[in-house]
Amino acid sequence: MSQYKNLKEECYEANMQLPGLGLVVYTFGNVSAVDRAHSVFAIKPSGVPYEILKPADIVIVNFENEIIEGSMRPSSDTKTHAFLYKHWESIGGIAHTHATYSVAWAQAQRDIPVYGTTHADHLTEDIPCAPPMKDELIKGDYEHMTGQQIMDCFKAKKIDHREVEMVLIGNHGPFTWGKTAEKAVYNSKVLETIAEMALLTEQVNPQSPRLKESLIQKHYQRKHGKDAYYGQS
Amino acid sequence: MSQYKNLKEECYEANMQLPGLGLVVYTFGNVSAVDRAHSVFAIKPSGVPYEILKPADIVIVNFENEIIEGSMRPSSDTKTHAFLYKHWESIGGIAHTHATYSVAWAQAQRDIPVYGTTHADHLTEDIPCAPPMKDELIKGDYEHMTGQQIMDCFKAKKIDHREVEMVLIGNHGPFTWGKTAEKAVYNSKVLETIAEMALLTEQVNPQSPRLKESLIQKHYQRKHGKDAYYGQS
Amino acid sequence: MSQYKNLKEECYEANMQLPGLGLVVYTFGNVSAVDRAHSVFAIKPSGVPYEILKPADIVIVNFENEIIEGSMRPSSDTKTHAFLYKHWESIGGIAHTHATYSVAWAQAQRDIPVYGTTHADHLTEDIPCAPPMKDELIKGDYEHMTGQQIMDCFKAKKIDHREVEMVLIGNHGPFTWGKTAEKAVYNSKVLETIAEMALLTEQVNPQSPRLKESLIQKHYQRKHGKDAYYGQS
Amino acid sequence: MSQYKNLKEECYEANMQLPGLGLVVYTFGNVSAVDRAHSVFAIKPSGVPYEILKPADIVIVNFENEIIEGSMRPSSDTKTHAFLYKHWESIGGIAHTHATYSVAWAQAQRDIPVYGTTHADHLTEDIPCAPPMKDELIKGDYEHMTGQQIMDCFKAKKIDHREVEMVLIGNHGPFTWGKTAEKAVYNSKVLETIAEMALLTEQVNPQSPRLKESLIQKHYQRKHGKDAYYGQS
Repeated sequence: MSQYKNLKEECYEANMQLPGLGLVVYTFGNVSAVDRAHSVFAIKPSGVPYEILKPADIVIVNFENEIIEGSMRPSSDTKTHAFLYKHWESIGGIAHTHATYSVAWAQAQRDIPVYGTTHADHLTEDIPCAPPMKDELIKGDYEHMTGQQIMDCFKAKKIDHREVEMVLIGNHGPFTWGKTAEKAVYNSKVLETIAEMALLTEQVNPQSPRLKESLIQKHYQRKHGKDAYYGQS
Repeated sequence: MSQYKNLKEECYEANMQLPGLGLVVYTFGNVSAVDRAHSVFAIKPSGVPYEILKPADIVIVNFENEIIEGSMRPSSDTKTHAFLYKHWESIGGIAHTHATYSVAWAQAQRDIPVYGTTHADHLTEDIPCAPPMKDELIKGDYEHMTGQQIMDCFKAKKIDHREVEMVLIGNHGPFTWGKTAEKAVYNSKVLETIAEMALLTEQVNPQSPRLKESLIQKHYQRKHGKDAYYGQS
Repeated sequence: MSQYKNLKEECYEANMQLPGLGLVVYTFGNVSAVDRAHSVFAIKPSGVPYEILKPADIVIVNFENEIIEGSMRPSSDTKTHAFLYKHWESIGGIAHTHATYSVAWAQAQRDIPVYGTTHADHLTEDIPCAPPMKDELIKGDYEHMTGQQIMDCFKAKKIDHREVEMVLIGNHGPFTWGKTAEKAVYNSKVLETIAEMALLTEQVNPQSPRLKESLIQKHYQRKHGKDAYYGQS
Repeated sequence: MSQYKNLKEECYEANMQLPGLGLVVYTFGNVSAVDRAHSVFAIKPSGVPYEILKPADIVIVNFENEIIEGSMRPSSDTKTHAFLYKHWESIGGIAHTHATYSVAWAQAQRDIPVYGTTHADHLTEDIPCAPPMKDELIKGDYEHMTGQQIMDCFKAKKIDHREVEMVLIGNHGPFTWGKTAEKAVYNSKVLETIAEMALLTEQVNPQSPRLKESLIQKHYQRKHGKDAYYGQS
């Protein structure tokens, strides 16, 4: 029996949440879960519909993009996952979807401004939209460079991937991550919710102001700060 | 056995309506129910997903924010509930959500104009949006001051909380209340419906007029006036 | 046993379609079905949630608004139904909802322009929006005058209620009708669909042209003309 | 037993996917599946609700629009299907819906610009909107000429129906096709998704740029090119 059985199960369960959350149709999207002890991750196979996906279909890949276990071809976005796991040691899971409102902001190439406390409950920054990749990189190792593109965006904007667990790839769509694969999926749903609210906010009032700093800090700290009082300790 | 068993059940049932009504995802939102005889209220524990919430998880709190019964930490918004119960003796339940369209208007910091009879069936005023709190109050006892912020808004606009059972907190989202927790949830759904209709109305016609006074009064009175003929007496 | 058992059943079944079609929440909306032989109609009782509505709750009323059978108070909109049944002998059922997009156009006080064949499959005219009632009529016999308002609108616009089976009441919402109660509900759903498509059409292209007359006639006639070839004969 | 039993089943199954995918209500829409060996296709009967549709109701028609088998009248759009099967030998199934966002773009008479990779994963061109038909053709053999209208549009725009498997008919709605009836339905859902994303993209940023050529080619080729690495080979 596979030593990665539990990892595959975690990856499978997280992937299977996507359709029910309204974040994917057909074969769109993919979630992975990492095993830091063995430096491998489990990821959805490419192009398999969620209705027929089984835990045994999940593919195990290492950070050099080599298949360690599994008979199916892994997600076409696998190299992006590998890049992020390799460079960001704190993350345990990654999710990628083509959720409607998240994609709309990505296609519009805009950061999502922090307009309210739903946003500030989860992060203190505007949600970054990475600019489209240069043509020569697209023609090269595209999915690997997508990981680079995300990391460069975070460096350029001086934001920390441990606090901002989501990004929009310009013209493409969202990547999110977290301590677990399930948390990465949670962040995909939260991002989609914030993206919808932000567009509607601008439609209700095109001059809507960005949330003021005191409220950003209050809501973020009460949930994530050292004296947080949200949730069960 | 707890003397608050029925109160916890009422609170639990009201909370459990939120996901089915499309008003919350994950752990967002909270509903409380009051017991006026004992000056306590039952409220959802903080950060617990609806799928695993049980009646026994509900926390009993008094109006001074002291936990009377329950092993879990109550909602981070508990002090707002306590403030409103203490100052507004007529209310029996309170609901708070991050429903999409309600949040959009709150983030846009606009009152929702009364555009039609769906609105006037429930209240005769524009739905008030309380202005964001001053920075010094945010840094202080924030959730307590949110209750104050709601009460100040109603005083400033000279509206009666027994007639207008809903408010938007600028940049945050809606609070609603009513004679029971179930009625508070009903008001959250009605507010969300009105908020969506009002945005769409402005999109269909940016010059849409406010509903005229004669229709506001007719629809409100036929449902809530002394000669009301809506519903079963 | 009631001689109106079948009529009540027809009315009940038609009402119960509304929540599943996404046209109502809670107690919103009402459908009636007429018995021309006895000059009475069956209608939903006022303020009863769909989840607990039973066929036996349905109220039988005559065209002079007198209750013929039933222990509950009929819908507050009953007089509008009675007026339309009395004056328009061809109709067998009437539906009233507060469906979101239909209400948005009603609140915006605009006729819905015929933009495409989904509309022309069902009617050849813009969907009329009756202007709000005069104040003195609102204060009088309001629901009776709502029937008058609909009839006046059709006379003023020179449209035939046998071809255009739907109307928007300015600031309020839609009324629809048809040969049966089920057809009236069908028309409510079609109206809501057309209302959503029309708003989106204007958003995609604010200069969208009205559908040209040749296409209006082609689509309407292939479904409703003397040489119709849509459906099973 | 019918020699077309399997063909009818394939057609039936594909039609029955439409309501669950949110692409049709009531009797709207129709899907067909072709049998190239016998030069016939199976198509939904006209005006039959999906809830009561049975495999035995499916009608078999040849490319000259003659009914080969079946007791019901075929879809009123049958001649459009026949025209396309006759002229485009590579296609195995065709779907037609009145899906909301697809219809909005059709009614707005605009091609859908390629704004992102969700679009480029499926086709490299803007989704074409065929201009409305000339009046004299509408009055003639309308559904036959709709097929001609689609083919003329593809010729005028110099696009290949084997690469672009979808079109909007101006003022009407979408037709999609594919190697099988199921693939045609898939393309209807993909088109609806792209149509919604494109409108939202323009709402988030009215100056959203068209996707650059390098990204269009990268995404299309990784899924459909000779070195494709999407899906299981």
